[in-house]
Parts: sequence; C-alpha cells; structure tokens
Amino acid sequence: MYYSYAPKIISQRVLQLSGKNLFTRNNFVLSNISKKVQLNLLRNFATIESNTSGAEIPAKKHAPTKELTQDDIKFFTSILPANGLIIDKEDDLMPYNIDWMRKYRGKSRLVARPKTTQQVSQILKYCNDNKLAVVPQGGNTGLVGGGVPVFDEIIINTNNLNQIRSFDPISGVLTCDAGCILELLDGYLAERGYMMPLDLGAKGSCHIGGNVATNAGGLRLLRYGSLHGSVLGLEAVLPDGTILDNLSTLRKDNTGYDIKQLFIGSEGTLGIITGVSISTPRRPRAVNVAVLGFNSFQNVQKAFLTSKDELSEILSAFEFWDINALKLLKAHNIHGKKFPLEDNYPFYVLVEISGSNKSHDDEKLQNFLEKLLTNEIVTNGVVAQDDTQITSLWSLREGIPEACSKAGAVYKYDISMPVPVLYQMVKDIRIRLQSAGVLGEDKLVSDVIGYGHIGDGNLHLNIVAKSYDPKVTNLIEPYVYEWTEQHKGSISAEHGLGLMKADYLGYTKSPPMISLMKQIKQSIDPNGIMNPYKFLPTQ
Amino acid sequence: MYYSYAPKIISQRVLQLSGKNLFTRNNFVLSNISKKVQLNLLRNFATIESNTSGAEIPAKKHAPTKELTQDDIKFFTSILPANGLIIDKEDDLMPYNIDWMRKYRGKSRLVARPKTTQQVSQILKYCNDNKLAVVPQGGNTGLVGGGVPVFDEIIINTNNLNQIRSFDPISGVLTCDAGCILELLDGYLAERGYMMPLDLGAKGSCHIGGNVATNAGGLRLLRYGSLHGSVLGLEAVLPDGTILDNLSTLRKDNTGYDIKQLFIGSEGTLGIITGVSISTPRRPRAVNVAVLGFNSFQNVQKAFLTSKDELSEILSAFEFWDINALKLLKAHNIHGKKFPLEDNYPFYVLVEISGSNKSHDDEKLQNFLEKLLTNEIVTNGVVAQDDTQITSLWSLREGIPEACSKAGAVYKYDISMPVPVLYQMVKDIRIRLQSAGVLGEDKLVSDVIGYGHIGDGNLHLNIVAKSYDPKVTNLIEPYVYEWTEQHKGSISAEHGLGLMKADYLGYTKSPPMISLMKQIKQSIDPNGIMNPYKFLPTQ
Repeated sequence: MYYSYAPKIISQRVLQLSGKNLFTRNNFVLSNISKKVQLNLLRNFATIESNTSGAEIPAKKHAPTKELTQDDIKFFTSILPANGLIIDKEDDLMPYNIDWMRKYRGKSRLVARPKTTQQVSQILKYCNDNKLAVVPQGGNTGLVGGGVPVFDEIIINTNNLNQIRSFDPISGVLTCDAGCILELLDGYLAERGYMMPLDLGAKGSCHIGGNVATNAGGLRLLRYGSLHGSVLGLEAVLPDGTILDNLSTLRKDNTGYDIKQLFIGSEGTLGIITGVSISTPRRPRAVNVAVLGFNSFQNVQKAFLTSKDELSEILSAFEFWDINALKLLKAHNIHGKKFPLEDNYPFYVLVEISGSNKSHDDEKLQNFLEKLLTNEIVTNGVVAQDDTQITSLWSLREGIPEACSKAGAVYKYDISMPVPVLYQMVKDIRIRLQSAGVLGEDKLVSDVIGYGHIGDGNLHLNIVAKSYDPKVTNLIEPYVYEWTEQHKGSISAEHGLGLMKADYLGYTKSPPMISLMKQIKQSIDPNGIMNPYKFLPTQ
Repeated sequence: MYYSYAPKIISQRVLQLSGKNLFTRNNFVLSNISKKVQLNLLRNFATIESNTSGAEIPAKKHAPTKELTQDDIKFFTSILPANGLIIDKEDDLMPYNIDWMRKYRGKSRLVARPKTTQQVSQILKYCNDNKLAVVPQGGNTGLVGGGVPVFDEIIINTNNLNQIRSFDPISGVLTCDAGCILELLDGYLAERGYMMPLDLGAKGSCHIGGNVATNAGGLRLLRYGSLHGSVLGLEAVLPDGTILDNLSTLRKDNTGYDIKQLFIGSEGTLGIITGVSISTPRRPRAVNVAVLGFNSFQNVQKAFLTSKDELSEILSAFEFWDINALKLLKAHNIHGKKFPLEDNYPFYVLVEISGSNKSHDDEKLQNFLEKLLTNEIVTNGVVAQDDTQITSLWSLREGIPEACSKAGAVYKYDISMPVPVLYQMVKDIRIRLQSAGVLGEDKLVSDVIGYGHIGDGNLHLNIVAKSYDPKVTNLIEPYVYEWTEQHKGSISAEHGLGLMKADYLGYTKSPPMISLMKQIKQSIDPNGIMNPYKFLPTQ
C-alpha cells in the first residue's frame, strides 16, 4: 500500500479547501505558533539563570560607549513618555537584554521604545553626539544574538512603531511602521485578498522591520523571492539622526543607487529602519500540501526537479526534514499523537502548492505524484484532505525548532549550499562528533538534526546538546564553517551574522568584499555606535 | 461581433502551441528584432551628421581627466592585443562615441575591449592612478546617454567579455561574463529548458552586464521580478583595480552588506561589472497572447485587476498602448498589412500568459476573457491561435519604439507612477503642447504617444518631434519631471538616469538620499574617474 495515513490516497484527489477556510487556517496556525513562542519567551525569562552561554561575547568593551549619566537619562525622559522608557529596572529590562534562546545576554540599563520616526531620529542624534552605542531591537526573535546588547548598549525597541500606514488594493503595496508584527500584517492583508510574501516560524512575534534588517528568508522565498525583490521602499534613520525618506511604493524606480538595498540585511549596523513599503502578492484561492517519504536524498533531489516541471508556477514550498527530526517531534509530543507516515523513511518532504484554480492545482499535484510513483522516486505519501490536515502536515515541519529546543541546548546553523551536497554536511558532522565520542544517549550531544528549504539550498543544521559546552563548540566550529567554505556555501543563509558569526564572515566573503563593507560602515556610522561587536569581523 | 480578426474567436479556444514550437518561436522573434536593431544601429553610424543633439552635455569638462599621452597609449598597447584596442581612428571610434539614437556623442580617442577581468582590473588601476576618466560600455543600447563618453573619456567596452562560465540545470543558476548578449543567453537557456528572467526590445544587442548596471526592467518584470531579486552574484572591478569576487550562485546568502545590490543600477559609476550570476526560471511549456481593445483607461485598469484574480500565477505580461501608437505603427508599416483590431479603440492591451499546463492556461484565459465580457470591461479582442499569431501580436507592442524613431526625433521619458494617474500624464502633456501651438501636423511636435507596462505602473511617454529643438525641450522639461514629482512617481522607472536625467534626480529622491549617494560614490570612487557627468547631480 502506498498511502497509509488517514488522509485519502492521492489518486482520489479529494481536496476541499475553500478560499475562505484557507485564510482561517493560516490565521489559526499563526496564532498557535505565536502563543507558543510567546510562552517560551516568558518561561525563559522567568527562569533565567546565570549560566547563560556567553561564548561569543568579546572579552572587553571596545565600542565608543560611555557610561549612562543623569544628563543622558534626563534627555531620554524629556522626549519619551513613561511607557516608552525602561531605566534601571532589572526585571523589566530582562526580556530585552536576553535573546529568546537564552544564549546571549547583555546588561543594558535603558530601553527606549519610540513611537515616531522623529523620536528615533532625536534618540540616534543624541547617542551619536554623545558616543552612546545602541542596539536596534524588533521582536527579539533572532537566533544569532544580533538583537540584544553585548554590554550596556542602549536598546531601541520598535514595539511602539506599530501602525499600518497605507495599503493600495490595486497594486498590492503595503506601507507600515517597522514594528508591525508579521502575522498581524498577514492577517490584515488576508481580509483584503493579499498576503505577505514571507512566512517564518517566528511570525507571531517578529517585526517586519527586523525581517527586513536581517533579510529574513523563510518558507515562501521559493515562490515569492527575497526581500531584496519585494521591498519597494524603506524609511530609515541614520546614526546622525538623518531621516532617509525612501518609502516608495513603485515597482520600478531607477533613480540613483538603490540605498534601501544596503539596509536590507544590514542587521541594524547602519541605522534603524522605521518604515517599510512592500509588494504583496494576491492570496491564492487554493492551497494544498503533501508529505512524502523518501529512501534517499538522491530521490529528494529528483522529486524537487520533478516539482519544478510539474508544479512549476504553483509550487510554493518544498521543505525537507530527516528521520531524526521526526523522532524528536514524536519524543516531545509536538505534533500530537498521529503521524502521517511511519518513521520508516530517512527523509521527508513537504510540498505545498498555491494557485488560483483549485481543480487545475489538484490535477497538477496528481500528475506530479504519479510521475514520482512511476519513476519510483517516492514510495509513500499523504495529501491533505482539508484545512485541519494541511495544518497538521505543516505543524510537522514547523514544530521541529520547538522539538529541538525542548531536547536541550541547541547549536543552530543556517547554511546554504548547492543542493547535491546539502545533506552531506549533516552526515559529516555526525561522523565527526561520533569519532570524538560525544554523540549518543547520555553523551554531551544527543542528536544531530537536518531540515530546511530544499528549494533554496538551505540547510538548518541543529545540534542538540545538554548545554552549550566549549568542548562541543570547538568540535563544531570552525569545522562547520570550513566545510561550508569548501563547498562554496554561505555560513548564513537566511538568519543573520549577529554576534554569533561576525568573526566568521571571511568563510563566505573575500577580503576585498569585507574591506568594502567596513568602508561603507565607516562612512555611514563613523562613531561606530550602531549595534557594535556584530555583523562585521572585529579584526 | 466581438472578435473580428482572423484568429479564431476567444470562445473557441483553439490554442495550439507546443512546448517545442514555443522555443523556436522565441528564438525566431528575438532574431528578427535583433537584426532590426543592428541594422538601425549600422544605418545610424553610417549617416552620422554633425547636428546630433548635445543639449544635456555640460558646458565644460570638470572630471579629473588629463589628455591621453603617448605613455598612456603605450600602457594600453602593452596589455591589450591589437583587436582589443581602437586608438585615434575616427571612423572606428564612431560607433562607440555615439549612442544608437544619435542623441549623445562624445570624442573619446581610445576604446579598450578587454577579454579578461584581470585586464579590466589593470586598466582601471592605471586610469585611477593617472586620473583618466572612463566610461563603461556594454551593447550601447541605452536611451539616456549613460554608455557613451561626454568628452574624451576612455571607453571600456565589454564586447570581448562574452563567455558563459557555468550553468547548473538543477538550480537554474547561470554564471557568465558581463558582455554576453541577452538574446544569446536566452537561446542558450532555451536549449536547457530555462529562460532569462528579463526580456527587452534591445535583447539582440544589449549585454547582461549593461542590463545589471542599469537595472533593466522590461517585459517580464511583472512575473519574474527585478534584477535586485534575480541576480545572485556579481564580479566587479572597483576604480582602484580591486576585483570583487562575489559570483555567488546561492539563492540565500546573508553574509554582510549585499554589496552587489549597490552595483545593480549604478550605471558604471562605482566600477565595472565583469561577471554575473543569475537565477533563471523554468521555461514555460505553454504561452499565449491576447490583444484587447478598450474604450477607456478606467477599463484597462479593471482588466488588470481581473487578470490578477483570474490569470494570477500564469500572467506574464500586461502591456498597453494608445491609439496614437497604433496609428504610427500603421503609418510606418512596422507591423505589416494586417492589424488584429480596427483602430477604433483609444487603448489596447496585450496580455501574455505562460504556464506549465496548456489546457489549464487556456481555461484560465477563457475565464478571464468571459469575465471581462460579462462585466462589459472589454468589447473586442483577439487570441493568438499559433506561433505566427503570437509573434504578430507581440510585434505590435515591440514595434512601437521603432515606429516612433522612424517618425522623427523622439523625446523619450520612462516614468513610473500609481496606475490610476498613469495616462493622465500623456493627456496633460498633449494639452500643454497644444496650448503652446507646437503640436500637430507640420508643427514642431507631430505626436505624443503613450505605451508601457501597466503591471508595473510604468509609462513610456514618447514625444515625436521634427528635431531636438530647445523650444520643445523647454516645454517638456522640467514640466514632465515636476508632474512626476507631484504624483509621487519616479522620473526613471526602468531605463537609467545617465547624462539625460542626472541633474533631475532631486525630483524623485530627497536631499538626504542624494547626499548619501554622493557619499558612497566619493567613498568608492574618490578620484571621480567612473562615468563622470552622469547619474548623480553635478551640483
């Protein structure tokens, strides 16, 4: 029997999502996840301990920061309302000083939460004039320590910059404040028949400004491309307080250097993004999802190529995970009791299709699956029959990071590389840890998980350990970066460099490239107040 | 009767293109057009006269250029073979010194045609050390005087950088030299089931490096997005000879500032692009085209919105032109004898669909057209029945620039703006020229034509005059730029700023934006040798 799970077998093609249900589903999924993230966040903050890893923290402060004085505090109090400031209250500061993975922790004494771009400008000008280093912070959902202070940098959080400025239903262009939460924006667009062109696990907490500042990738990049293509305009404040008003809503604008592109993915090192214009696609009328089991990574690749031919313009996600990920999901009961496929396959793939005509899409999916069967590329799979099943299938993929977090301290790597070698990295790191005698039950490292976005050649390598242990760290790094360099990959595919990978930039970029980056940084932030110690190598 | 042209009426849906034919067709169309462009080019060069307009040329040379000396010539001769250099031969220099519209003409004494990135590096280093200004030049198909010298700048032409470096059939990533011709690249990809993500009239001559340097838009941006999204990596040489080796083939790479983005659309003012990596989409199996006649621009907009719903993921072009454009096509016999619709409509739209399943696409097109008819949005239209008819319908749209050129000296403007006001600009400029008594048969201006890309809010305003006359120029400029500014548009949508619009940048970008651009230019090209007088305002 090919298809063993409750959803009807593929050949029956009884796929009954309506457009209306689809929107409900997405909102439903999103809400669930965001609550989980938020709960985790709170739990972490409540139980924060002193053994938080600080392995990557520089030995000493070298950014041009002076201590916060009474005059400084007076200034901030003069321009921000009481609810826009947190000063010297340790408990209140904690959620801003530490990242949600509890891996990075700073000691800022002041969080500013401006409500207007003008206030951001005043704050930055003051900080620049007075050599006070700052760290811009959005939803604090980053994985590389980019959004929390390293020492006592002032935190400028975009929580209060949360207004939608405009939406044009003809062009589909949305303009909003940087602090708008991705999920809420998507919900706003859903009511208007549009959707955000990006989607990621942290959508319930992350800010669009943070997404842009880190050039977030996510689940839909395969279909809708990167933010370098979909962001049409930005409003940003430079370190000296200058407001760059480049909130264009035009799809085409070839007037001068495309300055906004520099800010996309600059991780708050050049200024603070305060507003975003983004081109949003029409929300598809029909969505469906299949999960397939594969006997080899070779067949995963063949299936991807087949999907490009058969699903082509309606393919919206091609995600994979390995059997270790599935076992972890089961062990930590993330997905519930039912699993769509037995854990007999080394690899699983989730294929999502989104289109404007349900019967056409169903037929294309059918053709795709039949081709996989005929060519013996896949041996087992399920297709969602309704809203609930689509949610259920997606939750397998989306639950993996949570399952890893529950299992222990997680070393997370986000690598892009040519697809053919993508899983080899996971195998090689397992061999390395096994040889060193640290991988196994009751050992330092309990698991090595591989999952990610096949369509983008993007592997998420998660190494689950008892704690962040220098012995483990040294076995993994710089090995994982050297491996990436040898295979012409990128050490940071869709996350950021942050504090974690700033000093490893040279594994992906050449000295002339890094030199030019430093030149640009120096030109725009000569005092080095913006997000110091991160993004660029200190040496 | 709704559908009056030879192609069968829409409701019959007899659309018979096969995948194989499709590739043939595209190559066929491309070849035709490129030959025309090349012929025009040669004709222009052969008959070049001294009355070439130089209205926008600065009064005097102020770039840091010294005269070319024997030592300089000795250097160039030492690193380039004889066929890579043209020195002081006026006839041979002419095609490089003048643009194809014969609007801009410089007096360079030297054209260098390097064959390797290393040679480009040597040349730029020498020029930078010796304060010799240079103009990078690709296929010389630009419309704004960006690719020809203003005075005696050295021309560095990329003709000899013309090798395809690699193509990965799994990811669809192409890596090639900057001097590869767009059409040839597309032909290369066609044989492998892929296509270039951009397409424009000059494809038979333009270089991919020039496309990237000017961030060319074109006919398929609606579907495949801008080069900021599809270019994955660049190799570029800085003014000091430094080679930036950023030829990444990864879809995701968040390591440091995305430097390549600065070069996309920088029009040769920061360095010379020598290599390009680009993500290419799967070539569609089925393509079809309809041309529709509309009674109002309001209905054109309604049809566009309907196409977003009904054609959605298979919509690949939504182009429009006005009746004046059609009359010009007829008058200059560009299209041949047969016209698909009578010239009874003020507006015409070409809709192209491209997808992976012909019968699905046909049905979607049918639904789209029926919806337009039911809602009385359109009253007449034709759908291509075969290869030849698709070519024929496209040639209407693609023949417009040629028809304008044949009619006289053409003032070309390339404006993007919100779609609702898009055609108002054409109307307003007609009124302005009429009021001034210069528009009409036997007057200074014979015609004002509007056409372009509705899907991108991009109008090509072409004003056909007897010659480039200061009286006409002063009536149009800065009026057209002021109008654009008032309507929140861009004065340069998909062409470039070049020499023509450098001083008008302030109509679209704010002083802080321009200031930052100048800062970046100063930082990367401190001697100002790269493409002087262009792109950025001289004041």
